[in-house]
Amino acid sequence: MFLVGSGPGDPELLTRKAWRLLTDADFVLHDSLVDDALLDQLPASVEVVDVGKRPPDRTSQADINDMLVDLARDGAAVVRLKGGDPHVFGRGGEEAQHLAAADVPFEVVPGVSSAVGAPGVAGIPLTHRDCASSVTVVTGHETPDKDESALDWDALADTVVSGGTLVVLMGVRRLSNNVAALRDHGVPAETPVAMVQKATWRDERTVSGTLATIEAEKEAAGIEPPAVTVVGNVVDVRADTRELLDR
Amino acid sequence: MFLVGSGPGDPELLTRKAWRLLTDADFVLHDSLVDDALLDQLPASVEVVDVGKRPPDRTSQADINDMLVDLARDGAAVVRLKGGDPHVFGRGGEEAQHLAAADVPFEVVPGVSSAVGAPGVAGIPLTHRDCASSVTVVTGHETPDKDESALDWDALADTVVSGGTLVVLMGVRRLSNNVAALRDHGVPAETPVAMVQKATWRDERTVSGTLATIEAEKEAAGIEPPAVTVVGNVVDVRADTRELLDR
Ligand SMILES: C[S@@+](CC[C@H](N)C(=O)[O-])C[C@H]1O[C@@H](n2cnc3c(N)ncnc32)[C@H](O)[C@@H]1O
Ligand SMILES: C[S@@+](CC[C@H](N)C(=O)[O-])C[C@H]1O[C@@H](n2cnc3c(N)ncnc32)[C@H](O)[C@@H]1O
Repeated sequence: MFLVGSGPGDPELLTRKAWRLLTDADFVLHDSLVDDALLDQLPASVEVVDVGKRPPDRTSQADINDMLVDLARDGAAVVRLKGGDPHVFGRGGEEAQHLAAADVPFEVVPGVSSAVGAPGVAGIPLTHRDCASSVTVVTGHETPDKDESALDWDALADTVVSGGTLVVLMGVRRLSNNVAALRDHGVPAETPVAMVQKATWRDERTVSGTLATIEAEKEAAGIEPPAVTVVGNVVDVRADTRELLDR
Repeated sequence: MFLVGSGPGDPELLTRKAWRLLTDADFVLHDSLVDDALLDQLPASVEVVDVGKRPPDRTSQADINDMLVDLARDGAAVVRLKGGDPHVFGRGGEEAQHLAAADVPFEVVPGVSSAVGAPGVAGIPLTHRDCASSVTVVTGHETPDKDESALDWDALADTVVSGGTLVVLMGVRRLSNNVAALRDHGVPAETPVAMVQKATWRDERTVSGTLATIEAEKEAAGIEPPAVTVVGNVVDVRADTRELLDR
């Protein structure tokens, strides 16, 4: 059993190992953020199961866990394919715990996380010697069973104020809340912000502005999920380089 | 010109795109954290230049920048290959700015960062629904031209106390300083910590403990750079799964 990351979208950003495991698999169970262009390249011998459909057709996490265990016990070669990296807001840890509890051996094959790759292709480095010694990745959409305070916005704001980079995943719908939380905790209005939508897919787009303007920019451009939001001075590197950036 | 990430070490964790660009390149300029096993697989037509040697043979950043520009102007197909991802403590941003200033078109090809991949293969998810809604990656070794305070340890400690994960790169030699900084800013002594050395290389090793014990664990095991240090409750997921983890 392999828990495998598929990268941000472009089938060529899959690792060579992921590709080998996929082509040798009996079953591939994948999430919604995996491109059909990739799945279409797989040999006909591979049974592809989409477990990432939107509600009401979505397979529950418990059902996915059970499918993985059943297939592994049948001796099948199974790849559990997740967008980006399986361990960055991907529930890879939960599935690993379930497999281990059921005595199923497994291996983790990391992938290019959108948290790194989406800003990267858009010309935004997560760190920079002159302006960023830390990068923090958060979810912009807390799970409903959690208290809002699961994120310490005060600490997050302080890392940005001291020059760190903040990357928000799953933060398109709640952009206003997140911007307000940063502003309320002292992050200056002029702090640079960018949103990268569907990085490495055909409909990739990037908009940038500041904490004061990004909501208007997002609306004007009609940015939709999936997108990552980057907050911090590193966003300005894009302005320096975008004319020469092959995109 | 391509700024390309090579992943944490295992040549199979290169992306398919990186592999295509490498095999088609005229020149590959690589850092020290790129495995010879990978470079040995390249066709003889590719000229491989090691610009990552240790001092005194190290090529300065200014010289690397100049080489990249000169080769690009000569019309050569050039891959600048960096360990992990080029934009995670990899100076990819600086090189991009230099290329853009010299009017050299370039593309960024993200890779699997060791910040994600090293904990991942060792069975440590960076986020977990039950215990981590944020992950922060920092350098444990500030550049000498920077004030110590470039990292806001108070904010970093707060993110850990509120359940976030902290990943320290380049933090082997200064482990004691970093542990002390976290403890001084209120992170409990019993917080789980792991160090993953040379993830996906032949000499990969993982040790774990707590903030109170990790320095002794590191000494006992003789952990050397490169290694990543992970601080937070996610480290305990490894304990749940390691018997079944194929490693
Ligand atoms: C449930 S999280 C999974 C993240 C994934 N495990 C990873 O490492 O990229 C889904 C979020 O990832 C981000 N995302 C995934 N693919 C993306 C892409 N191609 N471009 C921009 N953001 C993306 C979006 O923020 C989206 O809401
Ligand atoms: C200058 S930074 C470059 C990081 C790189 N750009 C990346 O994304 O992985 C070098 C640090 O990366 C970490 N590192 C790189 N490869 C590693 C590996 N295979 N295992 C553990 N840590 C690694 C170590 O912390 C090392 O000190």
